[in-house]
Amino acid sequence: MGKQEKIQPRKLKGFRDLLPQQARLKKSITDIIWKNAAVAGFEAIETPALEYAETLLGTGEETDKEVYRFTDAGDRSVALRFDLTVPFARYVVENFSELTFPFKKVQIGNSWRGEKPQKGRYREFCQADLDIIGVDSLSADVEVISCIMQNLNELVPQSFTMSIGHRIILSALIRASLPSIDPSLEFKVLIILDKLAKIGRPAVIDLLVAMPGVGAGQPEQLLTRLELKDAAGDSDLDALKLILGDQPEAVAEIARLQVTAVLIRSLVGKSRGKLVVDLSIARGLGYYTGIVFETTIDGLDGFGSISSGGRYNGLVSRFSSTELAGIGGSIGVDRLLAAMEQLTETKASARQGVFIALAGSECRQYGFEILRDLRALSVVSDIALKEGKLGNQFKLADKRNFAWVLTIGGDELQAQTVSLKNLATGAEHRGISKAQGLELLKSI
Amino acid sequence: MGKQEKIQPRKLKGFRDLLPQQARLKKSITDIIWKNAAVAGFEAIETPALEYAETLLGTGEETDKEVYRFTDAGDRSVALRFDLTVPFARYVVENFSELTFPFKKVQIGNSWRGEKPQKGRYREFCQADLDIIGVDSLSADVEVISCIMQNLNELVPQSFTMSIGHRIILSALIRASLPSIDPSLEFKVLIILDKLAKIGRPAVIDLLVAMPGVGAGQPEQLLTRLELKDAAGDSDLDALKLILGDQPEAVAEIARLQVTAVLIRSLVGKSRGKLVVDLSIARGLGYYTGIVFETTIDGLDGFGSISSGGRYNGLVSRFSSTELAGIGGSIGVDRLLAAMEQLTETKASARQGVFIALAGSECRQYGFEILRDLRALSVVSDIALKEGKLGNQFKLADKRNFAWVLTIGGDELQAQTVSLKNLATGAEHRGISKAQGLELLKSI
Repeated sequence: MGKQEKIQPRKLKGFRDLLPQQARLKKSITDIIWKNAAVAGFEAIETPALEYAETLLGTGEETDKEVYRFTDAGDRSVALRFDLTVPFARYVVENFSELTFPFKKVQIGNSWRGEKPQKGRYREFCQADLDIIGVDSLSADVEVISCIMQNLNELVPQSFTMSIGHRIILSALIRASLPSIDPSLEFKVLIILDKLAKIGRPAVIDLLVAMPGVGAGQPEQLLTRLELKDAAGDSDLDALKLILGDQPEAVAEIARLQVTAVLIRSLVGKSRGKLVVDLSIARGLGYYTGIVFETTIDGLDGFGSISSGGRYNGLVSRFSSTELAGIGGSIGVDRLLAAMEQLTETKASARQGVFIALAGSECRQYGFEILRDLRALSVVSDIALKEGKLGNQFKLADKRNFAWVLTIGGDELQAQTVSLKNLATGAEHRGISKAQGLELLKSI
Repeated sequence: MGKQEKIQPRKLKGFRDLLPQQARLKKSITDIIWKNAAVAGFEAIETPALEYAETLLGTGEETDKEVYRFTDAGDRSVALRFDLTVPFARYVVENFSELTFPFKKVQIGNSWRGEKPQKGRYREFCQADLDIIGVDSLSADVEVISCIMQNLNELVPQSFTMSIGHRIILSALIRASLPSIDPSLEFKVLIILDKLAKIGRPAVIDLLVAMPGVGAGQPEQLLTRLELKDAAGDSDLDALKLILGDQPEAVAEIARLQVTAVLIRSLVGKSRGKLVVDLSIARGLGYYTGIVFETTIDGLDGFGSISSGGRYNGLVSRFSSTELAGIGGSIGVDRLLAAMEQLTETKASARQGVFIALAGSECRQYGFEILRDLRALSVVSDIALKEGKLGNQFKLADKRNFAWVLTIGGDELQAQTVSLKNLATGAEHRGISKAQGLELLKSI
């Protein structure tokens, strides 16, 4: 095929390959999430990457535009999932009788969105989702959020902030502060508030003032109330209880949110991450019906949220008239990987394992015997795939970051011994017995 | 949204959800593969699910028809990968300067083919691929095949057979047995031989006899030579050396294959799997240039191969004029999962972990404290997400297969004690101290 026209090796825009060091780092992330999720009783599931388009679409105009959709060979309108949440709703309804509720699930997988590629954002991205469906309780909120925080605590190499807000309390504050706007405009207010961090206070006030029914000074009052802080730096929930005294549902939610925050902090314990109650959080406008949260790494502005979620008590209503309350959150695995790559020195991973160098093909069988013994001891080990110059084999072992080279030449083969060299220290053990060699390498 | 038209919750034909017990089993499969691959020095990589269509297409007409391809929003012709091998070739060429050769890689991921769904075969399927690229040596063949065999040995719950053949030796045998056929027809002979297991000896002979240049009795002689066995049940390689004495390249490959088989057997050691040299294996016609292998579970006829691969020295030639020899193999993770589901009793997994039952919401905070302590000890633990009737909480804990229930009622809260019940044995420990309880549960 040498002479035929070559195909240019290239990836699609917004997609990426992972080199071994990146794939290793990513696997260390998912290993930790699997571990913490299992200890906390979350059960793994999987759903297909491809779904009927109608299953996925229609949840939000913004997302719909970004979905990879096409007609398959069977003339079905299909789409690649753009998150793990919408397919999960389909999954829960379709597998209802096979599941035990409340159902605690963990899923790690890729989703696809044809959005504009940005720093740390790709068109194919891996997320880890934790959800509890089938119960509306503060304990469920605590379980999901604390497990996510626990994971981030082990994964994020510096301080981070998880902000929790609440849709019902925020709506109540809007009603209390902008009493004359038409209720149908409340959603528009949320959209404007969601831009607070991005466009700033004065711009938000300008947008609000321009709305029908908004009186002079009212936007300032709304923002001032959202910015009320208590001594701990949280939104001042006790003050808000007084302000919202005539909205008992909101007052009850404030009391629930207070207990939730206490329990999350207690469950997570000492952490590099800070949990902050911040009622200005207005994310996931179409989705959420209670607590919401998002997480940023301190000092990495413009990088976006590495983990977010909230309570969505209406999630399965697109598929079923059975109501199922739920709370869920995602950890952006690829986002986290990008953050870790940016934050930590790309230090070479520690030297490990043993490389068996062979002076000639006559040494091969003996070398493979030792390889078998090393691997039976779970020692990471590899062997020269081409015998020949020992110098080149040592160079390869060094480049591949092995800790030891075990050499087999004519003398070692004859005497059934081995020679060892530590590539970091240069220490050598020449012509020791095979058993001695294994004993020494076993302990590394 | 309760009154709006509901979307029917359904999966696409040929796709499936994994329930928790299936996802758990699948994760146990991939965990073992990751472990063995790491010990043997294979490095993880990832490539995108979606590629330019030209990257993937044109490797085989059969596959091309099954590929999910479409035009994306940027008017690019794109396709979902149908295996991990073709994207890997693109990856190696595109990332050439970042990799160390010979490059040993492991990749676990999904691929998609719109083929007719069959038992254990889905349109979305997970494979684990092991490859060594950048060297043509029998040691590389041994490394890939023995690592796959080692994995299957830990994964397949009964005896299995891995058959290894060789494209060059098979071609030489065809030339020696059908001396008068036009060389351009050799490929057609391979296609017919590939059907041997499916259509049987007489049908294969009929097809061969009908080919121009095939003499009377020649097909029988070819098949008889392919069926020559030595005392160990392998293809009789020593006899074939004599038959192929005038084709030195083939004789050299036979010698290499003999050493390869010896080393694989030595490296794998005691195994539920049997390695058989069977030169009638003709799989992967377009791809392979040396050793080939496939693996079936004994007694699961019609289920197909759970693992296959071979040497492909021309793999990157579509993308580069640099030649890179390679050997690779896939383990069909979803195929293996289906086999395991069929072969092993769907036994309930062993009871494990602790469920904390709460008599009332006043017990919640104390319960979460204990939960934190249990998880810090890596004890799988969960808590009632809705306080209330203890009977219902015990039922849920039983259904979810927890080993212990730790109950907190008014007495326990007051005295800061706990009460434990073992759900398997019924054994109880009432009102013991929290420290005693943790001590006891730590050891489970």
